[in-house]
Amino acid sequence: MKYTLADIAERFQCKLAGDPSQTIEGVHTLEQAGPGQLSFLANPKYKSQLASTRAAAVVLHPEQRPESAGNWLLHENPYATYARIAALFAAPTDVAPGIHATAIIDPSAEIHPEASVGPYAVVGPEVRIARNCIIHAHCVIQRGCSLGDGCVLHPHVTLYAGTMLGQRVVIHANTVVGSDGFGYAPDDGRWVKIPQLGSVHIADDCEIGAGTTIDRGALDDTRIGEGCKLDNQIQIAHNVQIGKHTVMAGCSAISGSSTVGDHCQIGGGAGLAGHLHMTDHVIITGMTMVSHDIRKPGAYSSGISQQEARQWRKNVARLHHLDELARKVRALEKRLAELEPEDD
Amino acid sequence: MKYTLADIAERFQCKLAGDPSQTIEGVHTLEQAGPGQLSFLANPKYKSQLASTRAAAVVLHPEQRPESAGNWLLHENPYATYARIAALFAAPTDVAPGIHATAIIDPSAEIHPEASVGPYAVVGPEVRIARNCIIHAHCVIQRGCSLGDGCVLHPHVTLYAGTMLGQRVVIHANTVVGSDGFGYAPDDGRWVKIPQLGSVHIADDCEIGAGTTIDRGALDDTRIGEGCKLDNQIQIAHNVQIGKHTVMAGCSAISGSSTVGDHCQIGGGAGLAGHLHMTDHVIITGMTMVSHDIRKPGAYSSGISQQEARQWRKNVARLHHLDELARKVRALEKRLAELEPEDD
Amino acid sequence: MKYTLADIAERFQCKLAGDPSQTIEGVHTLEQAGPGQLSFLANPKYKSQLASTRAAAVVLHPEQRPESAGNWLLHENPYATYARIAALFAAPTDVAPGIHATAIIDPSAEIHPEASVGPYAVVGPEVRIARNCIIHAHCVIQRGCSLGDGCVLHPHVTLYAGTMLGQRVVIHANTVVGSDGFGYAPDDGRWVKIPQLGSVHIADDCEIGAGTTIDRGALDDTRIGEGCKLDNQIQIAHNVQIGKHTVMAGCSAISGSSTVGDHCQIGGGAGLAGHLHMTDHVIITGMTMVSHDIRKPGAYSSGISQQEARQWRKNVARLHHLDELARKVRALEKRLAELEPEDD
Repeated sequence: MKYTLADIAERFQCKLAGDPSQTIEGVHTLEQAGPGQLSFLANPKYKSQLASTRAAAVVLHPEQRPESAGNWLLHENPYATYARIAALFAAPTDVAPGIHATAIIDPSAEIHPEASVGPYAVVGPEVRIARNCIIHAHCVIQRGCSLGDGCVLHPHVTLYAGTMLGQRVVIHANTVVGSDGFGYAPDDGRWVKIPQLGSVHIADDCEIGAGTTIDRGALDDTRIGEGCKLDNQIQIAHNVQIGKHTVMAGCSAISGSSTVGDHCQIGGGAGLAGHLHMTDHVIITGMTMVSHDIRKPGAYSSGISQQEARQWRKNVARLHHLDELARKVRALEKRLAELEPEDD
Repeated sequence: MKYTLADIAERFQCKLAGDPSQTIEGVHTLEQAGPGQLSFLANPKYKSQLASTRAAAVVLHPEQRPESAGNWLLHENPYATYARIAALFAAPTDVAPGIHATAIIDPSAEIHPEASVGPYAVVGPEVRIARNCIIHAHCVIQRGCSLGDGCVLHPHVTLYAGTMLGQRVVIHANTVVGSDGFGYAPDDGRWVKIPQLGSVHIADDCEIGAGTTIDRGALDDTRIGEGCKLDNQIQIAHNVQIGKHTVMAGCSAISGSSTVGDHCQIGGGAGLAGHLHMTDHVIITGMTMVSHDIRKPGAYSSGISQQEARQWRKNVARLHHLDELARKVRALEKRLAELEPEDD
Repeated sequence: MKYTLADIAERFQCKLAGDPSQTIEGVHTLEQAGPGQLSFLANPKYKSQLASTRAAAVVLHPEQRPESAGNWLLHENPYATYARIAALFAAPTDVAPGIHATAIIDPSAEIHPEASVGPYAVVGPEVRIARNCIIHAHCVIQRGCSLGDGCVLHPHVTLYAGTMLGQRVVIHANTVVGSDGFGYAPDDGRWVKIPQLGSVHIADDCEIGAGTTIDRGALDDTRIGEGCKLDNQIQIAHNVQIGKHTVMAGCSAISGSSTVGDHCQIGGGAGLAGHLHMTDHVIITGMTMVSHDIRKPGAYSSGISQQEARQWRKNVARLHHLDELARKVRALEKRLAELEPEDD
């Protein structure tokens, strides 16, 4: 596909400085873009690359526009604008329109004629798949699931019975939604399973990474709000409630019945304990353990950066006796006060 | 399905106080149960909800029974009793009895006529699938696996060759059992694979979550004891031995050749190093690293709760010099002792 | 299969001391090997087992050879030699030669006649599968992927479009390669997806565990160098570059755009932040967070070993005020200096 700069500027509401007839066939970084490719300047620290880039055009903030001649697409948010333009050049999906001959569709399922269902997909009773959905090969969608317009399930996704997806929800390969929550009652040294009778609701415009797992609720439903983005290898336990536009990086996890607000950012490998509440606009840095409520927006941490192992071992040995050390300091303070001349 | 309280009380050995003819059609929380639904009181802190609940009946401990009239199912362990009753209302599985026409079954496999095998399942040579097993769509069961009575494999489960499951083992979607352990011998800067020749044994009544991986042994077998419950995204390395009735929460992991006792509880995100031994009745709290043997029952931790990032950064900077700080305190103690008058 | 010691010694370049006609039918540990089985001594701490082992022969270092008679295969690297010998006794794969009748192969895919493709595999357009590849049941290989000679994909592997595998790459079950990287541009409180247009290259002789995820690059490619070994449940984010012969244990993760050198060892549960650089020959111990560059070879840590929970809670409480404690120590030092007689 080729687009002129005039066309791109109009579609994406940029101001164009330069040659409107220049054609664009792809995108790349400032450093690696070649003729016919569009690039972007989002982080001012790369501004010096504007002088040497071979990109045919660059999306940037009006304030970053250099004096020199060139093809500039000016926008207040150059990174998001680049993202939208780049989508023009993403490869189209390989799933053919319609239902593949090998897909097994229960007669009671309703599949929109403009949805695609790939080879070996299995769609259970009373499932509803709306317009423009793309179900890749080998997905399993159990009884009563509902997918809004434009959802995409990549290969090997499993949706357990009753999973509800809003519109334009994208789920990457080998992810599981709606598996049983982890609930057992102790009974004389054994564990009795608590049936997991709720389901999972994922709202519009969420994207869920690969190899992620989201459990169904025990009685209520697990819910993920509009516009959330979850990376790979994430674990969402039963009854969790996540607000809108919250993002979670890879390998993070939320334990059962916790609630997370809107516009939060949870770093990679971070873990939230169960039954806690985190308000809106909270940032959790990587590998942090959140074990109690967070009621004030801001950034929270408990991850520890690396140190040479030999030194770290010494520090950890001290950490294991830190309470004792603090008591010693307190004792020193007292002993010292006794020696010091009194103020008067 | 509908059941009378008389029927439920008899089946689950509760003492019934109230109307034996009251029918129950479902379960819910005290707060949300409606007419025809049964609820439970397990945590005394919710006792006040008994006054306002609309539940048709409540399972509770005899000592928690309120003065007021109502339908009470009395049992010493109300939570486990609720769990057992609730199972009556769990949706039945969607896999039709018998072997789906698209399942590929090796002629040497033995599948009990009362087992179910779903669409596109692949069952290898010499596999044995016992009575009442349910194999969901897309499972792959390789050569020589054995599944005892009543096992359930959810979609996309992979059992590598030789995996042995006891009775009533449940494995959730996209979980892998029997993959090669992580074993390599260094050889001149390269890694030579150690063939992984053992297998995996999972005993009766275990449940394994979604997206979990359990590796086969290198020479001996990896073993998980009776009644263990493993959550999602767990990693069990080769040669691990887990005792009976141990539970592991999401994203926890056990490294190679470690042994874990009976009745242990391993918190979410916790990790056990390899070649260590943990005795019975040990509780590991969330995100703890277990790096040496635990020979005494009790609770162990090394997770750190979150703090405002600005403050945490200062504390970590100090932690990286904690050994030095402890030495300073020691030096202060000595210097101070020299100043202090001697006891005599 | 049976092999004589003479045959094994010749194939694997060992010096044989003992009976060349002794036959070997399998391998096991020194403790558990029986007649006809070969064992090995790699760790000198097990040397005492040589006296009691029933193994028919033992691979060991010439310096470890006992005085007593026996069948010894002598090699400078007994562990790697054992590994190579043991491969003789690994079970052959169950995938029949050729393409299974139920595999769906795009007409434009090129599959070598000596490759095997299992049931229900789906192979997209312009895919190239070279000689001796084994594609197990249910793998999905999307458009334009390339697999070099001798690759093995275990069941339920997903390769997104454009994934490039070198020769002899092994990928375990339910692993995903080439899923979209986690990239979004903020735009007025929402997240706009950055199209992920790069791909993934995995070089010769890599092995990737089960349930692992490796994301495609945003613009450049994600690259894993020759001979790397990745365990289960690992997350590799977009644009990551890993050098040669690096190993990563289970549940470890590398965030976007970070580069890792050759011959590194990353422990279980460790996490690398994004946009950082780690040089060659670095060892990261388990559950360490790497948050800044490592330019010097050696071992690095930030994991903390477990402690009894009661004591740990006290220490963490102090850790949350460690900066304050360090200030107190500084103040004590000053106050004490004022009391101390001056040197002259």
